[in-house]
Amino acid sequence: MAGARPKVEVPILKDLTIDNITENVHRINSQGSDPRMKYILERLVSHMHDFARETRLSTQEWMEGIEFLTAVGKKCTDVRQEFILLSDTLGLSLLVDSIDHPKPPASTEGTVLGPYHTHDAQDIPTGSSISADPDGEPLLCLCTVKSTTGAPIQDVKIDIWETDSKGVYDVQYEHYTGDRPDGRAVIRSDKEGVFWFKAIVPVPYRIPNDGPVGQMLEQLGRHPWRPSHMHFMFEKEGFDHLITALYLRGDPYETSDAVFGVKESLIIDLSTVNAEQAKKYDIKEGSKLLTYDFVLVTDEETKKLRDNEALKAMKALGRDNMTIINGLLVPDVD
Amino acid sequence: MAGARPKVEVPILKDLTIDNITENVHRINSQGSDPRMKYILERLVSHMHDFARETRLSTQEWMEGIEFLTAVGKKCTDVRQEFILLSDTLGLSLLVDSIDHPKPPASTEGTVLGPYHTHDAQDIPTGSSISADPDGEPLLCLCTVKSTTGAPIQDVKIDIWETDSKGVYDVQYEHYTGDRPDGRAVIRSDKEGVFWFKAIVPVPYRIPNDGPVGQMLEQLGRHPWRPSHMHFMFEKEGFDHLITALYLRGDPYETSDAVFGVKESLIIDLSTVNAEQAKKYDIKEGSKLLTYDFVLVTDEETKKLRDNEALKAMKALGRDNMTIINGLLVPDVD
Repeated sequence: MAGARPKVEVPILKDLTIDNITENVHRINSQGSDPRMKYILERLVSHMHDFARETRLSTQEWMEGIEFLTAVGKKCTDVRQEFILLSDTLGLSLLVDSIDHPKPPASTEGTVLGPYHTHDAQDIPTGSSISADPDGEPLLCLCTVKSTTGAPIQDVKIDIWETDSKGVYDVQYEHYTGDRPDGRAVIRSDKEGVFWFKAIVPVPYRIPNDGPVGQMLEQLGRHPWRPSHMHFMFEKEGFDHLITALYLRGDPYETSDAVFGVKESLIIDLSTVNAEQAKKYDIKEGSKLLTYDFVLVTDEETKKLRDNEALKAMKALGRDNMTIINGLLVPDVD
Repeated sequence: MAGARPKVEVPILKDLTIDNITENVHRINSQGSDPRMKYILERLVSHMHDFARETRLSTQEWMEGIEFLTAVGKKCTDVRQEFILLSDTLGLSLLVDSIDHPKPPASTEGTVLGPYHTHDAQDIPTGSSISADPDGEPLLCLCTVKSTTGAPIQDVKIDIWETDSKGVYDVQYEHYTGDRPDGRAVIRSDKEGVFWFKAIVPVPYRIPNDGPVGQMLEQLGRHPWRPSHMHFMFEKEGFDHLITALYLRGDPYETSDAVFGVKESLIIDLSTVNAEQAKKYDIKEGSKLLTYDFVLVTDEETKKLRDNEALKAMKALGRDNMTIINGLLVPDVD
């Protein structure tokens, strides 16, 4: 057929050595038709092999790596994702979020999702409480969500989650079934872009360190603490999905978050509910108050920014032969 | 204390971006005292982050990666190691074996261990059969094991394993308990370095492709076949641990092994048992015959070769500030 792509010849794979194994693995992996998958595999295999070559990895270390990854997999359950925790603690999660969700100035920055988001949270009307913990310090949260032009965005689906006063997420309790989620809810913004709710003042907590990732941190002399924060996730058609969190200023772990999530623009000072607010929002005067104005970026603006930054980064790496297909980087076809 | 190492300052981790996250993860990972672990982590994190930056990895692709690794972990059992299979099919296993077990000329080359070695194999006297499969084609194996100087090596522990005539290892059967291993045994060489045994002619087989690694191969358009082979592992104090295999010439998968293990020096032609041999070894005349003379390298020679090659490779990479401690590469301490 005219114009048909020439069939990739299957290479002869024999007598592979330290020096020629990589190009041969690339060749056998290049038979598929998906250019993005081929590029991902090519980069993955190159980095994995270079890692082994640069460290002169020993068989024993390789086996320890195999056993570590197996243990990480075994630790995963429906409500615990140890591989996300590994990605978080090695800075990969923050990096990927930064790549995929670039932010123009004056929009709300993103941060790590973490392993504790669930789909169990129930829809609650604005003004409700997301926490049933009687030991938590009451917190009134008054927020808005707007576009970069300052226009309120109505009916945004806002996922909010935080730990209880002991620093534990609902899913971490042994008796957790998903029937009665606590410390999490989904709220919708009104036509002014306003959403408000009651919660408890976030506390610092340890990421689960009873598994292989916890052991890794210990071996590295790293603490497992995250500073006090509350997670937010925003979904609205036409706008880029925003995963973020707000952090409390002055937290002892403010500058040493185990998963690298803290950004200055996401650090907040809590204030105090005054008499008028107490009456309006039905909460005790003097309670803690969180206010924040979130700013979403349109899909279109994000896509443009993401594509531009990808091509700029490739240029800086000396890879001028790249193009973008459906928002994903692939090498030019010759 | 005079001469004490200065305490590494914990870096301030905040406002991390695509461009500065890597150096900051290195800094927080550099607080431990094990120089090898620090080097391994530094290289691992650099490659992982560069992989994400060079592919501009999307959040969705990252999540697919998390889910893939989780599925690989979940597939692992006591008798199935899906992470080894992943390492094998991406060429990492062969690479690590080549790095850790460099071979001088005129010694037997190594190859991949594969995921099917077990510790269930029983010690059998030389001359016994390692296979109880009545459907296999009988094979007489006459082998020796010697040093690079040609001296026979006595009392080497030789682990041998192969599939049955259907291309299935004992551990792959659902009813497998480990009580009655089949197709595997441990034999000791005699004072002439001789060991011989009866087996069946190896057949090609598919690596287990009912798991996530099988799905990956399918997506890549790769077949899951390994050419016919028999595994050997040699252990003897003073000699480098040799993991190898012999491959049958003319196998349909001779040049497309799914795990990249075939080397010309390990391909053999089977011959035929003559009348004298039939009588001597109590096997039917005309049966298939495998002969091979294995050559082991001393620990000392291997260590010297490994260290030299590591430093040579570092030099080629422009990393002149490396040293070797206990056989493992680490950066020089300033």
